[in-house]
Amino acid sequence: MRYEQASVSERLTMPPAVAVSTVAFALHPPQGAALGDPRPGSPSVTLWIPLVRRTRAPFLGLWALPGGPTRWDETLADTALRTLDAAVLSSPGYLEQLYSFGGVERSAEAQRLVTIAYWALYGEADFAGAAEAPDPNVAWYSADALPELAFDHAEIVDYALERLRSKTEYAAVAHRFLGPVFTLAQLRAVHEAVRGRAVDPANFRRQALAQGHLVDTGEVETGTAHRPARLYRFAAETAAASEAAAAPREAARPR
Amino acid sequence: MRYEQASVSERLTMPPAVAVSTVAFALHPPQGAALGDPRPGSPSVTLWIPLVRRTRAPFLGLWALPGGPTRWDETLADTALRTLDAAVLSSPGYLEQLYSFGGVERSAEAQRLVTIAYWALYGEADFAGAAEAPDPNVAWYSADALPELAFDHAEIVDYALERLRSKTEYAAVAHRFLGPVFTLAQLRAVHEAVRGRAVDPANFRRQALAQGHLVDTGEVETGTAHRPARLYRFAAETAAASEAAAAPREAARPR
Repeated sequence: MRYEQASVSERLTMPPAVAVSTVAFALHPPQGAALGDPRPGSPSVTLWIPLVRRTRAPFLGLWALPGGPTRWDETLADTALRTLDAAVLSSPGYLEQLYSFGGVERSAEAQRLVTIAYWALYGEADFAGAAEAPDPNVAWYSADALPELAFDHAEIVDYALERLRSKTEYAAVAHRFLGPVFTLAQLRAVHEAVRGRAVDPANFRRQALAQGHLVDTGEVETGTAHRPARLYRFAAETAAASEAAAAPREAARPR
Repeated sequence: MRYEQASVSERLTMPPAVAVSTVAFALHPPQGAALGDPRPGSPSVTLWIPLVRRTRAPFLGLWALPGGPTRWDETLADTALRTLDAAVLSSPGYLEQLYSFGGVERSAEAQRLVTIAYWALYGEADFAGAAEAPDPNVAWYSADALPELAFDHAEIVDYALERLRSKTEYAAVAHRFLGPVFTLAQLRAVHEAVRGRAVDPANFRRQALAQGHLVDTGEVETGTAHRPARLYRFAAETAAASEAAAAPREAARPR
């Protein structure tokens, strides 16, 4: 018997519904700004989140995080990946379980719902790719200008942003946005996107180098029109801490 | 319709069952050793975990983590607290959500199960209290000498221990085991319990003070027979990081 067909008294004897919802992030210039042309005080890039418009009750017509019920034969991570792929049309570069939400106040429809929230990272190309094949029920929104969200998805987004901005997570997050080597300008762009404000380049350079987390690789950017910038990597200890903080790998089912 | 009464084909149309399981830890001297009388090379205290013996199928007779299905009207944290209280006969000093396990390989009984795992900390008094009112189906086990466990609870314990021992979690964990002020001997005992081996007191003292995370409060222990030891606290930055890493507070329902 499905929840949809059950009466309220029948539902009371049934287990809660389990859904996976994912807060996916991509770095992209702020609304109305072209890359490299930020307004004064604005970050050069900001965080964007893909949302899916609900086409049925409850919350018909409202925007929601990509996700849905977990299927019988898939892991929780597979549910996150399947539903992200359906919305964004590509797989994220990084996926990690965030937190499970099962407050009783979720049961607005007399249906107890437990949501396992994931967070994911996408690259700039995925952002552009999704925009080229527009589905009117999928859109990227700037994290600081989200529409009203279905269920308690606003609470889940707030929690994801808080974790992303917390000091303890920050090194690991920057690591995942950047790849193994990066310029100080690239590191500053991640910093600006996560903090949501512009950062003075000279101050940022001095503080970043003083913390001792960065190692000069001795190499420089290639293929740039301007003077090539030095490439850095995170010190081994920072990278190790990032690995240790990572969640266990979930077995992905062969498809 | 309950899972227990459903056929396999009926179960395929039903949502997964949701259970909460908690890995609770208490610090206690190792098996066979009295407090203050460790064998050479052994830690003075070790980690102990309460287990509950299953009195029905599946896994009848095996030991399992305290926990059970979440009820219609309780949050996930309330389920953890209710089932811990039933097993240990007291509430933990600390409770935090750990991870959700929903691998398809859990469905040994043709029942898909999603387990939201919590971890909790108990004090020495709770350990002793539970031993005074013995229920033959509840027992504390040393974390390095656990019996065979039901379901995939061994995997959940391994994950909890790995997180506890990871560098990034360590300061926060020590903080929660110790309270606001502590002696270096107390800090060393937590260190030995988490690492599972004895640590040389002089080396530990030198390294702990060199890291800059500890602040001498200027006060000493009171009420000790031996020479009173200095009391320390963690530096503000360490405490703040510990707060930032903490999970969101889950609303507890009035009972």
